[in-house]
Amino acid sequence: MTLPVKRPIFFVSDRTGITAEMLGNSLLSQFEGVQFINRILPFTDTPERVDLALQEIAKAKEVHGVRPIVFSSLANPLLGDQLQTADALCIDFFQMFIGPLGYELGISPNHIVGRSHGGGTTQHAYISRIEAINFTLEHDDGCTTRNLEKAQVILVGVSRCGKTPTALYLAMQFGIRAANFPLTPDDFERKKLPDSLKKHQHKLFGLSIDPYRLHRIRNERKPDSHYASVENCNYELREARLMMQHHAIPWIDSTDKSIEEIATTVIDTVKLERHMF
Amino acid sequence: MTLPVKRPIFFVSDRTGITAEMLGNSLLSQFEGVQFINRILPFTDTPERVDLALQEIAKAKEVHGVRPIVFSSLANPLLGDQLQTADALCIDFFQMFIGPLGYELGISPNHIVGRSHGGGTTQHAYISRIEAINFTLEHDDGCTTRNLEKAQVILVGVSRCGKTPTALYLAMQFGIRAANFPLTPDDFERKKLPDSLKKHQHKLFGLSIDPYRLHRIRNERKPDSHYASVENCNYELREARLMMQHHAIPWIDSTDKSIEEIATTVIDTVKLERHMF
Repeated sequence: MTLPVKRPIFFVSDRTGITAEMLGNSLLSQFEGVQFINRILPFTDTPERVDLALQEIAKAKEVHGVRPIVFSSLANPLLGDQLQTADALCIDFFQMFIGPLGYELGISPNHIVGRSHGGGTTQHAYISRIEAINFTLEHDDGCTTRNLEKAQVILVGVSRCGKTPTALYLAMQFGIRAANFPLTPDDFERKKLPDSLKKHQHKLFGLSIDPYRLHRIRNERKPDSHYASVENCNYELREARLMMQHHAIPWIDSTDKSIEEIATTVIDTVKLERHMF
Repeated sequence: MTLPVKRPIFFVSDRTGITAEMLGNSLLSQFEGVQFINRILPFTDTPERVDLALQEIAKAKEVHGVRPIVFSSLANPLLGDQLQTADALCIDFFQMFIGPLGYELGISPNHIVGRSHGGGTTQHAYISRIEAINFTLEHDDGCTTRNLEKAQVILVGVSRCGKTPTALYLAMQFGIRAANFPLTPDDFERKKLPDSLKKHQHKLFGLSIDPYRLHRIRNERKPDSHYASVENCNYELREARLMMQHHAIPWIDSTDKSIEEIATTVIDTVKLERHMF
């Protein structure tokens, strides 16, 4: 038997499809040697839209000569049943678990669509999330030391080591006020932490990175500069690590980690409360 | 039978637990009248760590007098089996579907942990994601019109209507280069789109918002100002909508939507390619 080279994958959701896509991709990453062709169908929340999905699924089967795989997340059981009529392997992350959960809790599900992102749509939750993002933007790269006492965590590390994306992810996904502050050659010469950080030492978390990766990232910005050179990257990273060790600042090497993994490690280490949006 | 008021919920993952938490929360939101107490245990990737999880689960049962519910996502089937020994309702999002998927694909899973966020950890994917975030930060709030031709989408709307968080989410979650540009009273008086946007009209997407919500958001920034007044919010939003209609710019009202929903709608409407990180 020869494996078909390309397998069509559908993600069908009555909302954004983000959760279904994340879990589906995570499952598919366990299987090597197959090329997956992804198609995402968000906001599939009426019989008509499910019908359109069914047509696309049937067409993909015809084109690729192999049954598609359909990951879905539909709160309405009637739409779930309708989608199951597809000639495909249908995996619904929702219907599968609602039954056992209702039995365990002793109550019936409300089948209401649109709660996928927790409190993300209530006015209070929306505003507190936006406030965390604004705080993080205002305290990016040491922009201001004002209100630093309101930060829940302050990321430190050399320029371009991943502080900004991590801080933004902490704010966006978890509503955490995450400032970030660069460690620079000036600090290394003085062999001292920036003054404004000293009284916040318990909130500091350090990021490090492989010098060659840093070199590549910096080189995109300032090609062939001293700043981007491997020697300078090596020097700055070494000095930053010494400084973090000296001040007992917890730190990790971000090189082989996704932004999600770095952010989760920060939350876990600094013992921040984790609210998911 | 009286329902227990508080039900302990565990999310156990060998990686970040973000996907498990999202799906679990989404499922639990279908059940009203129960208060859930969430505990997240990321990086549970050894028998010792599963054992610690089992101890916490047993303790929660004792404290709350009711079986906990455990949502898990473990790539290693041995760890999955170990966790299943908990006296709890155990729902593993991973093990449940790996079997049917392997059968359908005709290959065995590799059981390798750590692929949960797609290509997020490869050097190329990491750098292109960071580049999208940097582009979006550099093109926040009309900061610069340089390289606007490289934007995949340009969000427009009045100040504080949600452009920045949406643009950042597009960059962070989907690697999309999303600029954003304010529509201001100056533009409304001139009754013209900002000049720098004209040649990019096909990439524009508008955001609107309820005037009272906007008033509340602006009032946090500049209390009791003309800028934040309900009258002015009403005026700016009306003018912005007229301008968007006049230039046939697609737009949505973001008031009752989460950032995820707004971002998904943008992708869907502008027909952007969606890569999940």
